Amino acid sequence: MKLLRYGPPGQEKPGLLDADGRIRDLSAHVDDIAGAVLLPDGLDRLRAIDPATLPLVEGDPRLGPCVGRVGKMVCIGLNFSDHAAETGMAVPPEPIIFLKATSAIVGPNDPIELPRGSEKTDWEVELAFVIGKTAKYVSEDEAMDHVAGYCIVNDVSERAFQIERQGQWTKGKSCDSFGPTGPWLVTRDEIEDPQKLKMWLEVNGHRYQDGSSATMVYGVRYLVSYLSRFMSLQPGDIISTGTPPGVGMGRKPQVFLKAGDVVELGIEGLGTQRQTVVQG
Amino acid sequence: MKLLRYGPPGQEKPGLLDADGRIRDLSAHVDDIAGAVLLPDGLDRLRAIDPATLPLVEGDPRLGPCVGRVGKMVCIGLNFSDHAAETGMAVPPEPIIFLKATSAIVGPNDPIELPRGSEKTDWEVELAFVIGKTAKYVSEDEAMDHVAGYCIVNDVSERAFQIERQGQWTKGKSCDSFGPTGPWLVTRDEIEDPQKLKMWLEVNGHRYQDGSSATMVYGVRYLVSYLSRFMSLQPGDIISTGTPPGVGMGRKPQVFLKAGDVVELGIEGLGTQRQTVVQG
Repeated sequence: MKLLRYGPPGQEKPGLLDADGRIRDLSAHVDDIAGAVLLPDGLDRLRAIDPATLPLVEGDPRLGPCVGRVGKMVCIGLNFSDHAAETGMAVPPEPIIFLKATSAIVGPNDPIELPRGSEKTDWEVELAFVIGKTAKYVSEDEAMDHVAGYCIVNDVSERAFQIERQGQWTKGKSCDSFGPTGPWLVTRDEIEDPQKLKMWLEVNGHRYQDGSSATMVYGVRYLVSYLSRFMSLQPGDIISTGTPPGVGMGRKPQVFLKAGDVVELGIEGLGTQRQTVVQG
Repeated sequence: MKLLRYGPPGQEKPGLLDADGRIRDLSAHVDDIAGAVLLPDGLDRLRAIDPATLPLVEGDPRLGPCVGRVGKMVCIGLNFSDHAAETGMAVPPEPIIFLKATSAIVGPNDPIELPRGSEKTDWEVELAFVIGKTAKYVSEDEAMDHVAGYCIVNDVSERAFQIERQGQWTKGKSCDSFGPTGPWLVTRDEIEDPQKLKMWLEVNGHRYQDGSSATMVYGVRYLVSYLSRFMSLQPGDIISTGTPPGVGMGRKPQVFLKAGDVVELGIEGLGTQRQTVVQG
């Protein structure tokens, strides 16, 4: 299934993308794509519905982030060996984790807002997974049972705020609009191997990132288990697994986003996102 | 007003501490101490209620975290000059900010759970403030209008996870139970000057921290304005402002928590917390 949320910010309704790529409304069945709806039983109940019986959504509504009421967004740093190289940093001997404020989460096609004073706003196409069952001290063998599905996250990052403005990356990762999420949550059964997905990102039509989740250092299975040793993961939590090479910071000379730029990105099987950059 | 939440974890009801120190139930007036209830209008509506008309809560219920549905918990690092000195680090030229996962938030007297493999779990008494009105690019002059009130946070920290396990402090700050919050949210009008509050913490009756918010480097007013340049702050967000000297990591030899220890802490005007340490 491809689950989504559509409508104005803060008033999104739950929906589903049918086999013909049309949006069907799920409001009669669930209040949101969030929390307990993501549990294995909750997803099974949605699977049992014949999409043809669901109301078609007319027009071309805005898509919201594909998961609602996100408890936390955990991000993994330097998780692609070739991306680590371009930033001049070593591949870490164990995952680097940081949090992105959930207030940064927006829809997949919402504008990216340059924070005031920003000169180094950068992009990062990332494969994210969404937790579907509470995970605490789980083994790698059990790990995948805790994953509801996958989606795209653009881990937008202000490099000066992140690196040059005193310790801890949070400051450059949590600005409003820095977490476009979606377009849909693709349930785990539809993705045969999350470690074999092509990933790309373009700015104004120029392809900057052209990678694959195959070069990820710490994969989804390992990350569920690893993270669950440090904090419990709950249904609706989003874990974004890091970016392949091709970020603006890694170019010579460096390239950063400016108002008017158009960012397009995609991951095989998970759809695409498109953001216009605006001054905040 | 002193607002609180009481009852079993996840099922807390809203309440108020009356002038005699008894809990009164607010369920007939608000669904939770959270979100829009914390807006200036929401608090005014609660102020208009005569506490004597509210049902008295019998017995001695568990207290939950004093704010519900917290969107984010932002923490400030090394914000007391004497604490920075004891950790061997310099006072930063601008605030260091990091996020604590909201899944770490527990009631003020709930147990502190030592994560498996932890050998360096430490304490930090902190003055926290709670946002009562969305703040984005606000000036210092306007800053205090965005503060609903204050509470205590014990910013429990696993120092090996935080410092020795690869970049970013998140890993040692976000473990389940690492954010005891409460006992109550004391509204801003009851605290004349948040920068003149005594703060203390004891372990097994020994006083390790005995400080004051007067030695804070970046005060509440500045922090609201500063943070609002990097991310919007929403009603119910909690900002914990850093700890005075006396943490276990700073002792010679170092002292860390072990199962069975009892941690007690308090801040002038904001009540006290008491946690028993258990093995996770």
